[in-house]
Formats: sequence, C-alpha cells, structure tokens
Amino acid sequence: MDDFRTAGHAAVDLLADYLGKLPEGPVWQPVDPAARERLLTLPLPQDGRGLAELVAEIGGEVLPYPMGNGHPRFFGWVNAAPAPAGVLATLAAAAMNPSSAGGDHADVHLERTVVRWIAELAGFPHPPGGGLLTSGASMATIVALGAARNRAARQLGVDVREQGLAVLPPLTGYVSAETHSCVRKAAELLGLGSRNLRAVRTDATGHLDPADLRARVRADRAAGLHPFLAVASAGTVNTGAVDDIAAIAAVCADEGLWLHVDGAYGAFGVLDPASAHRYAGLELADSLALDPHKWLGVPVDCGCVLVRDPVELRGTFSLVPSYLRDENAGGLGWFSEYGIEQTRPFRSLKVWATVAASGRDGIARDVAHCAAMARRLGELVSAEPSLELMAPVETSIAAFRYAPDGVSDAVLNQVNQALPVAVQERGRTFVTGTLLDGREAARACLINPAVTEPDLAVLVEEAVAAGADLLTALRP
Amino acid sequence: MDDFRTAGHAAVDLLADYLGKLPEGPVWQPVDPAARERLLTLPLPQDGRGLAELVAEIGGEVLPYPMGNGHPRFFGWVNAAPAPAGVLATLAAAAMNPSSAGGDHADVHLERTVVRWIAELAGFPHPPGGGLLTSGASMATIVALGAARNRAARQLGVDVREQGLAVLPPLTGYVSAETHSCVRKAAELLGLGSRNLRAVRTDATGHLDPADLRARVRADRAAGLHPFLAVASAGTVNTGAVDDIAAIAAVCADEGLWLHVDGAYGAFGVLDPASAHRYAGLELADSLALDPHKWLGVPVDCGCVLVRDPVELRGTFSLVPSYLRDENAGGLGWFSEYGIEQTRPFRSLKVWATVAASGRDGIARDVAHCAAMARRLGELVSAEPSLELMAPVETSIAAFRYAPDGVSDAVLNQVNQALPVAVQERGRTFVTGTLLDGREAARACLINPAVTEPDLAVLVEEAVAAGADLLTALRP
Ligand SMILES: Cc1ncc(COP(=O)(O)O)c(C=O)c1O
Ligand SMILES: Cc1ncc(COP(=O)(O)O)c(C=O)c1O
Repeated sequence: MDDFRTAGHAAVDLLADYLGKLPEGPVWQPVDPAARERLLTLPLPQDGRGLAELVAEIGGEVLPYPMGNGHPRFFGWVNAAPAPAGVLATLAAAAMNPSSAGGDHADVHLERTVVRWIAELAGFPHPPGGGLLTSGASMATIVALGAARNRAARQLGVDVREQGLAVLPPLTGYVSAETHSCVRKAAELLGLGSRNLRAVRTDATGHLDPADLRARVRADRAAGLHPFLAVASAGTVNTGAVDDIAAIAAVCADEGLWLHVDGAYGAFGVLDPASAHRYAGLELADSLALDPHKWLGVPVDCGCVLVRDPVELRGTFSLVPSYLRDENAGGLGWFSEYGIEQTRPFRSLKVWATVAASGRDGIARDVAHCAAMARRLGELVSAEPSLELMAPVETSIAAFRYAPDGVSDAVLNQVNQALPVAVQERGRTFVTGTLLDGREAARACLINPAVTEPDLAVLVEEAVAAGADLLTALRP
Repeated sequence: MDDFRTAGHAAVDLLADYLGKLPEGPVWQPVDPAARERLLTLPLPQDGRGLAELVAEIGGEVLPYPMGNGHPRFFGWVNAAPAPAGVLATLAAAAMNPSSAGGDHADVHLERTVVRWIAELAGFPHPPGGGLLTSGASMATIVALGAARNRAARQLGVDVREQGLAVLPPLTGYVSAETHSCVRKAAELLGLGSRNLRAVRTDATGHLDPADLRARVRADRAAGLHPFLAVASAGTVNTGAVDDIAAIAAVCADEGLWLHVDGAYGAFGVLDPASAHRYAGLELADSLALDPHKWLGVPVDCGCVLVRDPVELRGTFSLVPSYLRDENAGGLGWFSEYGIEQTRPFRSLKVWATVAASGRDGIARDVAHCAAMARRLGELVSAEPSLELMAPVETSIAAFRYAPDGVSDAVLNQVNQALPVAVQERGRTFVTGTLLDGREAARACLINPAVTEPDLAVLVEEAVAAGADLLTALRP
C-alpha cells in the first residue's frame, strides 16, 4: 500500500492543480494529432509499470485533453462540471469496490437513502423499493418503459417475460417531437417499434399538447390499437421546456396510460422557486427518469429511475437463480431485482457526498442561480440585434441563432449549422447545436453553478463574432 | 481547490490504511444494526458540510461495512478485489468527468485502445468499431442479443427498430441450464420471451451438448420456428466450465445462428497456459461479453461487448438526433451509436491503468495463479473425507459440498443450503452457494491474485467446521 499512498497523494495534487487551473485555459481544444495517434495506437503493454509512473502519464497524456465540461463557460449538450465531493467519493467507492446488487453492506443501505433523497428533491413519492440508481437516464428510461410494457401486456392477458411480444398486437406510446431520443431507443430495444410511438402535436414553444394526446389515443383505440404509454418532458433537451404534466396526467388517468416523465435534464429545476410551478403534476407520474450526473453535478455516471408502484419494477426484473439467492436480503430483495444490472457499482456514495456537501439549500441555490443566469442570457441575446432568441427560457437552457437583418432563412441555416463548432474551436466558450422547427440554432445549457454574468457576455460576443465570420465566408 | 486538496490527501491516507488493513480483519460481517439504521434513515441534509468532514464520515460510517471482496479469503459470487491502479484512475476519471459518448477528447480515443487490448487479451478479433465498454456483462449481453435479434428479423424481412416484434413470429434461442441468468433477463427485456429460449442438454460436467443443440435447432425449424441464436459459456458461474465453443460454432455456422459467448467470468482464463486449449473456437463467435470488473480486477463497473461485425451494432443502436450531431466524430461515429448508454462514463481510464500496471505478462501470471490455486483447492477438497468436489476445476471455480459418509441426500441438502451463510458469518472466509443438478453446493471463485495456499486451508477448515455444526444442529 505504500505505492498506492504515494501515487495517491501525487494524483490528488495533480488533480487539484488541474481543477484549479481549468477556468484559465481554453474551454476545449481538439486533441493534438500526435497525442491522438498515441492514444489510439498504444500497444498492449507486455510488462507492468509503477503507479507513480501511471499517474504521471495521466497528467501528460490524458488531462490535457478534456471534453471541456469542467469549465464555467462550457454550455454544450447537458454535461455538468463534477462536484468535488462527488469526485472524492468515487475514490472511496472504487477502493471498497462492492457490488450494490444486494446483501448487507454499507453501499446497499446508502443507495436506499440517496434514492429517497433524490425523490424528495424532485418532489416525487417514494415508497420502499420505489427506485434505483442507473448508469444514466437512457437506462432509467429502459427500466421504466420495460415495466410499462409488461403492465400493458398483463392487462391483455400476456406475460411478456415468458411469452414475448410476438403473441401481442402492437402497443402504442405517445411522445412529442421534442421528446429525447433515448425514449425512441428504449422503444426500439424493447421491441415495441418506433412506428408505434406517435408524435403528439406541440405548441409554439415545444410543449406536448394534452388535447391532441387525448384525441390521438382515442382515435388509435377506436382503430383497434392498444395505447399504453405517454411520455412527458420535465425539461426538453432543446429548449428546456416543461410540459403541462398535470394536464397530461389527467389524460393518462382517463385513458389508462402509464405516464413516464423524462426529467433527465430538468427535474431538479423544480428547486428554483421561480420555476417550481411549472412542475405541477410531476408527482402523478407512474415513473420518472432523472440524472444526478446532470444538474446535480454528480460525476458521470449516475442516473435514477423512480416508480410509483415498486411491484411493477420487481415483477419486470426479478430473476433469482440459485447462485444469487441471498438469505440476508430482507423483504425488499436485491436492487438487481428492480433493474437490469446484476453487478452494480457503488454510485450512491458520490450522490451522498455531492448532496451532503451542498445540502438541500445549497443545491436549490445553485439550481436557481443557473436558471437566473439562463434567463439573463435570454435577455442579453434579445438585446443583441444580430442574435435571435428561439424560445422562452423556462429552465436553464437558452436556444438562439445568429440572425442579422436581411439574410435569407436558407443562409441563416447554413451559418447557424456551422456556428456551434466555430464557437467551440475559438476556445473561449462551448455551445452545441440543434434544429428547431426546421431552423438551425445554438443552445446553451447552464448547469454549472460557477457560471457568472461575464461568462454570458463572452458567449454572446463569441456567437456574434463566429456568426459574422461564417456569414462573411459565405458571401462572395 | 484547497479544500479538495486537503480532503483528497486525507482520503488517500484513509483508503491506504483501509486497503492495507483489510487482510487482517474479518472478511465480512453484518452491518451493525445501529449503523444500518443510521445509513437507512439519514435525512436529506438542509445545509452543506465541508469535504474533510465528509471524508471522515466515510471513514466512520461506510468503510467499516464492506462487501468483503477486497479480502484475499473472499470467494463469493464473482466479485474481484479492486486493482489499486484502477482505483486511482477512477479519481482522475471523475475529476475530468467527460462523457465518452463521442467527440474529440482523450477518453474517447483511449476507449478504442482498451477495447482493442481486451480483445487481444481474450483472443477475439477486433475490427474498428467492434466493441465498447458497458456497465457489466448484463448490459453487454443485452447489446449483443439486441444486435442478434435485429439481424434475425432483417433476414425475415422485418426492421425491428421500426416495426417492433409484434409483426414477427417467435425467434428461438438456445442456451443450457448452466447459462447465466443475465441471458434470460436480456431475452425478456428484448421481448423475445423466456419460453423461446430452449435449454440444450449438458453433459455430466455442465457443458452444452453440441449434438443436442443441432438436433433441437433442426426439430424447431422443422416445426416452423425460427432459430436465431446460441449462447455458449466461456466459464459458467456455477463451476467455471468452458463449453466446447468450436463445436458449437460449427453448428451455428451450419444452421445460420448468431453465436454469443458469455465470457463474463471466464474469458480471461484463456491467459492461463494450462487452460488455454479449452477456449478453442472463441474467436469464431459473433459476439463476446466480458467483464474487466471480474477477473481483471478493474473497479466496478466495467463490462465489455465485442462483436465480429461492427455494422450489426451500429445498425441496431445508432440514432443521431439534431442535438447530438457531431462534426468531429470521424468515420466510426460515436460510441453511443453502438450501444445503449448516451452519457457514458470514462471507464477506459481504469482499464488502461489496471492493464498497464500489470502488463500482459503480469495479468497472465495472476490468472494462472488463481487457476492453479483453484486446482489446488480441488485437491484439498478431494483429500478431505467430509467434503465432496462437485465438478472438475476447469478455470478458477471449485464447487463442493459437506458430505460425510452415511448422511442422506435430503439432510445433505439442508446442511449445504445453510453452509455458505454459516461460513460467511464465521468471518474468516466467504463462499456462496448454488444448486447443481438438485444438490446444494458451495462454490468458491478464485479471482483475487492475492490468494495463497494457507487461505485455501482456512476455507477447507471453515467449511468442515460449519458443516459439522449444521449437521449437529439438525440431529436430535
Ligand atoms: C431530456 C433528456 N432526456 C434523456 C437524456 C439521456 O440521458 P443520459 O445521457 O443520462 O442517458 C438526456 C441527455 O442529455 C436529456 O437531456
Ligand atoms: C458467467 C456470468 N455471466 C454473466 C454475468 C453477469 O455479469 P454482470 O454482473 O457484470 O452483469 C456473471 C456475473 O457474475 C457471470 O458470472
């Protein structure tokens, strides 16, 4: 252990330096071609090396090429800066190295607690056994939709686990154009078929229209189909729009649909007092997917699925062969009976540490700060003549485009499709792009509580500069 | 960052002490009821706390209650002791916190390299794009079987992603009674139905019978069914048996089946020169699931799926909405196009560090040592009159039971069902149980290279003592 101790101290210093200096450097830069080639072609080593040498190699070959999301001016996709407490917790979790499948050890008990904390933060009910940590919201969505699928089949007299889907008619689910792609991926994996996911109409600002949901469900049922699921977004990935969950829940209750809410990005936005009202009805969902590795800053990976009825999860996933029997499990059984993973990492320690380091008040303060900064960004964009805000800022995402007067929509699309990468390559800030109703746009997602107003000014400046450059380059 | 630095150094010392003292303490002990209650009922904190305090709390409330698998005398399930290099790497990975979904940062390039290394260690072909890291073998199996399902459907003219399984006849897969439960879980999740997984006969020592496989496939096809998949085990969980993969591959080639090999526990056993011959034909599989978090000792979680034809993976999983477009991805695309996870943790760094710390030679030495110790355990068990070895030791698992002369099978089953927990509670070593052909047995899985011959003697001693106690307690 002397090796581990020495190299461990070196690693801590290396990483403290790295984290401390992050804000001074470029947000992101392409991996140097020679370094990239080295990383890609490293031969399988024949002999071993000491830990100190490996730590030094991480410093020289890996740390210089981050994704950028530790930087306060990174606004791409939905990627957080890691909470320092969560980072330290991963070290302890790896040193203990349990499998949180089940049994009687600290990690298993702690997971029950942090799942309860997550439910409490999001304002979702938490019956015992009502959720578990996953690798992310994609997995959480598969777990939730798997339970929804099996309940629907049971209502048709079919045990999907045993009989499979071949004996069933198609089951139809309802989403919107703004629903995250992980829902379609889940439906494909589960064998439901993407054509059986119907896109419900959205309003002008991207909210699923509950009246259209009701009309489509009724029409499909009248046509002999089997509607079983609706998915609402508590914060869409494109603009952060929060669907009218209460109204959607009412339709689901009337029509007997499982209501799944995708809160991967946005569920914790409910902690911002200025936005909390948007989440009314969240507590009525049958299942909720959240991502502590997004707005909470828990180091990747950490998703979470919560369900109203734990029996549905256990009924879908419990399979206990003789070599996994455990006399110490207690009434709730193993976590591996509630989801897909058998060996499960000790994710709960980083959630515990991250939440405990800030407390509920600190988390709420950080969330509210990000939301306030996003609204401020919306104002700055609106005040800038060459930029156009593409949607109201409901949570902490601002979508906008470079759109000076007198430029055709076709040219604007060319410019704005190239704009995010152009901004990224300039190195001062980082946004990613999307398509909103046929129009290319940049979107900035603010989930790093270190963001300040001057950072927003840089983003506006860079977007304008990159946009102007791109436009000039397009003109003869 | 001063906080992080100070608390980080404290954490390193705490964990170096913890790891150093592990072998001296009990292997496992139940969580003290008061501590358990504290862990389970921790209220969501209102206010935050400093990092140093959190590290101390980990030391006081969490580290005392491990699962036990860091200890050299832990032989339960298939849970490894963490490689120290892998533990340190998790710290750096969490501090960088990228998403290895895709893009141009060190983690993505390193993942391509370590997947190649894993393939090289296991002796599996590795075309570019031919695999990715997963949270474990359960996920790896879902990814592989998802691709197999979609290929089979395509051959019947159906695009499962779009149309779903409702338009298809049942597809049948072939496993054995010794196939790990994760295969059935995957089939259930994928909507295939467990009744469409046929259990092929095994020989007396748990190997899938290739002739019976061929006969069943032909009979099912003659009956109008659609055979599409066979699963071979490269190391079963119960006894470590390695199926005759070459013979199974020949049947699969003749019958047009996708061959999946479950090497979660055993694939790296090929590095033991005394066992390498058992793995002949592994390289012929269409897909292989492995678990670096098992025999390699990479900290949990880390699984891996390898495929012969990368196009099958990308065809099954690629879905690139506008908000995930990436102009920097290069020809292979993102990892998230080859599997289920969207946000993906930086697992490759702990694989890199673990493999680099030992090198190929060191890993092979460790694997061979574990296998030799398991064979030695088999000898010790055979030499002990009151114990019975239940299967030959092919890799590094020894299955045995307490079976003194003159005790009925019914009583032996009662004794041996209780034996693993009784051994665990005595605290000196840790085995888990299973059922072999109706007979209760204990199984010891040796994947910690720190195991020594005296540790084996303790296991034999404890099994005999616990068995004798249990038998006495049963007798009037
Ligand atoms: C709204 C939304 N849902 C789901 C996901 C998928 O989550 P994960 O990447 O954790 O699988 C994301 C990821 O960005 C998201 O923004
Ligand atoms: C043979 C075998 N296959 C598959 C698995 C499942 O692997 P994981 O727990 O990583 O999902 C295991 C786990 O013990 C195993 O031993």
